[in-house]
Amino acid sequence: MSQFDNVSVTTNANVYFDGKVTSRTVTFADGTHKTLGIMMPGDYEFAASDQELMEISSGELDVLLPNADWVSIKGGESFEVPANSSFKVKASTVIDYCCSYFK
Amino acid sequence: MSQFDNVSVTTNANVYFDGKVTSRTVTFADGTHKTLGIMMPGDYEFAASDQELMEISSGELDVLLPNADWVSIKGGESFEVPANSSFKVKASTVIDYCCSYFK
Repeated sequence: MSQFDNVSVTTNANVYFDGKVTSRTVTFADGTHKTLGIMMPGDYEFAASDQELMEISSGELDVLLPNADWVSIKGGESFEVPANSSFKVKASTVIDYCCSYFK
Repeated sequence: MSQFDNVSVTTNANVYFDGKVTSRTVTFADGTHKTLGIMMPGDYEFAASDQELMEISSGELDVLLPNADWVSIKGGESFEVPANSSFKVKASTVIDYCCSYFK
């Protein structure tokens, strides 16, 4: 199974939308961060300050990115989010994701 | 914020009860494991093969351990589970937990 090695992980979860979206923050040796998260089925709008890469480990969702139409994404696929933007997600299943942040 | 350092964390979540209970496995340098998890509100029954220490970071639940009555547990508290047993949880809120395993 894939794993991140030599990292730090916060013991307390990040909790959004009444717990329907949760994540843990992973910090790498070079100081960069990723979050490993779960979305329960539902509709969400997220604000991104940094540029983000959202890698979907499992599940199916539709995403609405800035200046784009709704796109279907499933496990094994990913999408990029511009810095200082917001995006909408309709998760039709439980989503297991990894989000990377770029300054 | 409290964190675990110099660990490995699995990128794929452990998913139980249709995603209402999820966790990530953290492996320490000495080879021991913990899981960092989330329970959505609900009723669950878990089977423990190893002895477990369940530390509740946030939330409120009732737990029914073997040969005991229901006990209320809240964030900052913990309970121990004997090896080769099962226990029931009634989570009245979103639960953020850390589970340690002892061989």
